[in-house]
Amino acid sequence: MKKLINSADDVLADALAGVAAAHPSLKVDTEDRYIARAGGPTPGKVGLVSGGGSGHEPLHGGFVGYGMLDAACPGEVFTSPVPDQILAATKAADGGAGVLHIVKNYTGDVLNFQMAADLAADEGIRVESVVINDDVAVENSTWTAGRRGTGATVFAEKIAGAAAEQGADLASTALLAREVNDRTRSFGVALTPCTVPASGKPGFELGEDEIELGVGIHGEPGRTRGKLVTAQEIAAIALDAIHADSPLSGEALVMVNGLGGTPLIELYVMYAAVADLLAQRGVTITRSLVGNYITSLEMAGCSITVCRLTPELTALWDAPVETPALRWGR
Amino acid sequence: MKKLINSADDVLADALAGVAAAHPSLKVDTEDRYIARAGGPTPGKVGLVSGGGSGHEPLHGGFVGYGMLDAACPGEVFTSPVPDQILAATKAADGGAGVLHIVKNYTGDVLNFQMAADLAADEGIRVESVVINDDVAVENSTWTAGRRGTGATVFAEKIAGAAAEQGADLASTALLAREVNDRTRSFGVALTPCTVPASGKPGFELGEDEIELGVGIHGEPGRTRGKLVTAQEIAAIALDAIHADSPLSGEALVMVNGLGGTPLIELYVMYAAVADLLAQRGVTITRSLVGNYITSLEMAGCSITVCRLTPELTALWDAPVETPALRWGR
Repeated sequence: MKKLINSADDVLADALAGVAAAHPSLKVDTEDRYIARAGGPTPGKVGLVSGGGSGHEPLHGGFVGYGMLDAACPGEVFTSPVPDQILAATKAADGGAGVLHIVKNYTGDVLNFQMAADLAADEGIRVESVVINDDVAVENSTWTAGRRGTGATVFAEKIAGAAAEQGADLASTALLAREVNDRTRSFGVALTPCTVPASGKPGFELGEDEIELGVGIHGEPGRTRGKLVTAQEIAAIALDAIHADSPLSGEALVMVNGLGGTPLIELYVMYAAVADLLAQRGVTITRSLVGNYITSLEMAGCSITVCRLTPELTALWDAPVETPALRWGR
Repeated sequence: MKKLINSADDVLADALAGVAAAHPSLKVDTEDRYIARAGGPTPGKVGLVSGGGSGHEPLHGGFVGYGMLDAACPGEVFTSPVPDQILAATKAADGGAGVLHIVKNYTGDVLNFQMAADLAADEGIRVESVVINDDVAVENSTWTAGRRGTGATVFAEKIAGAAAEQGADLASTALLAREVNDRTRSFGVALTPCTVPASGKPGFELGEDEIELGVGIHGEPGRTRGKLVTAQEIAAIALDAIHADSPLSGEALVMVNGLGGTPLIELYVMYAAVADLLAQRGVTITRSLVGNYITSLEMAGCSITVCRLTPELTALWDAPVETPALRWGR
């Protein structure tokens, strides 16, 4: 294992120290292990909290700031945050109008966020939860009952975050996050595995010319292993899987997301293929992201996420955002 | 070789198609192979052009836009752009107040930019050139006479770009870019090699526990090979090398830059180490970047770049910028 770390045990603590040092706009609580906006919760605004295992950066800490999340709680690498930690983040995000939990559908995350929501309710904080499950690759998986949550999380955090910033109440903010999840589908492909620091060895193995089609963000198995094919063919497989699940049409927000170890030049090659294939299907890409937004440590590969937009979702996507990883319009 | 590409020959063309599809704010000339602002040159403004081999994305195309570059000309992967291509980019950037070439110090780049500058002069365009050579690792290298240019390029493009946007003339803009280069030093470390698509095999080899200290952005040899040590020790080696060359003091802009295959969580671990060591030296980091800004395809590793700021440079760093890869304040 070759990593820029001090020790496998200290990766999260050291990374949080780095986030704290690099971003004065964030408050990093190194004891309770959450990242919040430096100014504290916005009075009267619905608070947004997300979290999950570390190793997917910039998700979620990189999305804390104006127009997006109020707090994020990172677990150890590929490990759910614990209920007390989620509760602390929930309190840090509570401006008196309730808190929305945006939870990726992994069993540990769902259980721990539910326990934290119950604890928060005991303390008088209203919590709504939205579970993200946009990955069409598999029904049930290593760490999931039902479909896994992946790229739609970024879209839900941005769009619900914009609505909350504009004064939407808790129910409306939750409804929007659910709508984004319902309208979004993802599919991922791995070219290499990744290594969790505490384990020290790759989570799976792939042959010299093999790829994993439908891989999960922790390296969970996908649909099949196949031979490495062209970017155009990979894009077609991903979009066919998405289209079979939820027919593509109209205007779309599209993300070509790097899994951590794939260079940006390849992501642009993939994006060209995706744009070409969607145009052939009569889908108009009106908004896009190309880059590393929800990663799997140093895994090589990418995921493709498509959200069928509405005018309301487009306007909320365009609303100002100011976070370490997404920033525009303000 | 496992890459998300269609063919080794088409990587640049396909990536440019992706850039064009993803960024309506950019004009991509696929024939002459340059990326410019969609609106054309700004009349009366000094134009900024940079370029070099591809494989370092987001450098340079990702830095085209308001407050930074007017045009970028990407060569084939790790290959200099050709003079006609640089000339086309220069013309696309010319708003009548002259054009500044920001050139990383690699022999092919320097020669071809010089030829392009001569061709532009023949067509009545005033060109000034600034050569960036901030890498303290080695004197002379595989592709370089003198020191290599690396992270300071990003700083020079941002700071000179802000000055040009504010109306600085060609001589002042060039002077600022030179000042940034003079005040900036970098040092890089590789954990793995990378593979140029046209070659199909890694550019060098490293043992299971080996790192290359002082590596160049094309995998050129550095100072020594060493055993993999902690992030804290790597940061100390890099900062010692920088400090020995140009003593660290005062306020600094610091970049911890990923080489392409290193996850963001490790870059934050590195940043924490760098911040800690600089504080011990009495240096105050007042501005920072943590992420992938000047990469070497999928190489794992990072580079550390430190610029000793002045109030003027800080103000220009803070000025609005709106490009695919850097965006704030507008």
